[in-house]
Amino acid sequence: MDMPLLRVQPDPADPRLTRRVVGLDHTGARVETSVTVERPLTLYLNGQEIVTMMTILDRPEDLALGYLLNQGMRRDDAVTGVEYDEDLGVVVVRTERQTDFEQKLKKKTLTSGCAQGTAFGDLMEDFAGVKLAPEAVLRTSWLYRLLHRINTLPSLYLEAGAIHGCALCRQDQPVVYMEDVGRHNAVDKIAGWMFRNGEAPEDTIFYTTGRLTSEMVIKTVRMGIPILVSRSGFTAWGVELAREANLTLIGRCKGKRFVALAGEARIVFDADLDYVPDESAKHWRKNSADAMARQGDGADAA
Amino acid sequence: MDMPLLRVQPDPADPRLTRRVVGLDHTGARVETSVTVERPLTLYLNGQEIVTMMTILDRPEDLALGYLLNQGMRRDDAVTGVEYDEDLGVVVVRTERQTDFEQKLKKKTLTSGCAQGTAFGDLMEDFAGVKLAPEAVLRTSWLYRLLHRINTLPSLYLEAGAIHGCALCRQDQPVVYMEDVGRHNAVDKIAGWMFRNGEAPEDTIFYTTGRLTSEMVIKTVRMGIPILVSRSGFTAWGVELAREANLTLIGRCKGKRFVALAGEARIVFDADLDYVPDESAKHWRKNSADAMARQGDGADAA
Repeated sequence: MDMPLLRVQPDPADPRLTRRVVGLDHTGARVETSVTVERPLTLYLNGQEIVTMMTILDRPEDLALGYLLNQGMRRDDAVTGVEYDEDLGVVVVRTERQTDFEQKLKKKTLTSGCAQGTAFGDLMEDFAGVKLAPEAVLRTSWLYRLLHRINTLPSLYLEAGAIHGCALCRQDQPVVYMEDVGRHNAVDKIAGWMFRNGEAPEDTIFYTTGRLTSEMVIKTVRMGIPILVSRSGFTAWGVELAREANLTLIGRCKGKRFVALAGEARIVFDADLDYVPDESAKHWRKNSADAMARQGDGADAA
Repeated sequence: MDMPLLRVQPDPADPRLTRRVVGLDHTGARVETSVTVERPLTLYLNGQEIVTMMTILDRPEDLALGYLLNQGMRRDDAVTGVEYDEDLGVVVVRTERQTDFEQKLKKKTLTSGCAQGTAFGDLMEDFAGVKLAPEAVLRTSWLYRLLHRINTLPSLYLEAGAIHGCALCRQDQPVVYMEDVGRHNAVDKIAGWMFRNGEAPEDTIFYTTGRLTSEMVIKTVRMGIPILVSRSGFTAWGVELAREANLTLIGRCKGKRFVALAGEARIVFDADLDYVPDESAKHWRKNSADAMARQGDGADAA
């Protein structure tokens, strides 16, 4: 069977994504370092202003569509166009008919963690109808190879930090890797990319550097992805929703260790753990401040 | 001079804040572990529904007031009452006169990272008028003792993970330490606590486990706090805003290392670095997934 190739990844060398700034280090010496650039992007749906998002702005069209899909826009609302105007910092999504989306947004709930005011009521209704692929499988041998591959991808995180990463994967291969200042943006960009590319979710695995909150679980389920993996921890409601939707939920995944708290039946424990290395310092990236401090050592020129 | 005592800290033993759940570990063995409980809290202002937040719900009154203050409610809007109804999951803030807050919320911008749709336009207007205490000082000897003290406080993070922490400090002493599922909640709770206790900000230092985004900088400046410290990284806009407001902005602060990218003049480099230990594994807590994985080792009973 052919392995899918990596089709999207960040370009840490893109000069729009980082800025060099000068400050002082802990000894009081002058230091020059890179920081991540966040930019505003205002989203319109059929001429109606929906929201302004802060993003690294590498994939405005994916972000716009993914945001709308993950916030509850129906997948049968035929999208007739997505137009990005770089000068105005505006992206316009057009659909065949008017949507009831603006109305939906009025009932907004701030979800935990990185929150955008997900319209919870509607999403929970959708939840009941979801059937995540029961035949999907996660081999632990895939999982360990996958994590190694994700950890060795080029990353804006290593360059400038303050960023979250997400990957859409099949078996032991990352297919798409995206980063953004908010992990919700990174997830939404992948959702938009999947929609625009007609990508089927049934055999995919989703990896995030962020925590496994209710919002993260809801988005993954909405995307139809049966398996969600994170280095970070769980919230109780995230676990509850994952169990309800039969989503395989794996957290605290680092080195050879992980904990699965929902959908455990999809996991095939086929890896020989004697041959999986414990995580070493150079693999501690993709993981917020610890790697940041190290990254400070290497990437910052004094 | 008397040192202030620690006046608020999390109670990791509070049974409402965590839940025990059962799953599988990486060997396929049954594992029981703690996860953080997130609960919805709906905020009303003078009978008008403002928002529903996901929170650990340990301090609903502080969260409600701090949210409103950090979103742009004027400090001269006299608060006549804050009532929390545990059964309904509702908190009501009453002010002497009607506020223009609901109107303000209509112009919402999703800030980066953990975002609640801060009303940016207004906040930026406020920004111009802010004078952060120029005489405030941060001694690096305080900073290192402070970090050590924060790292040895009881923490829900160590118990169950998936949580952010913030501390309000004076000199080398944490005064208030709060945690929540979203770092914005933890910040807002401290803002509410300061308001309710008439706490002066001019000589305080704010510590957060979260990233130094524009939103975090705006909130700190609104709170009148002149110094902001984080283990995590910066965004370019966060740095820009901090420089504009003359906020001292210190990030990637770990072990003896840090980088200051704004308001450097307040820093007194008085610590003898030979006597500051590099961060060891047991101090890697308060810092998302790395500590989580370790915490999994210890706190999770197989």
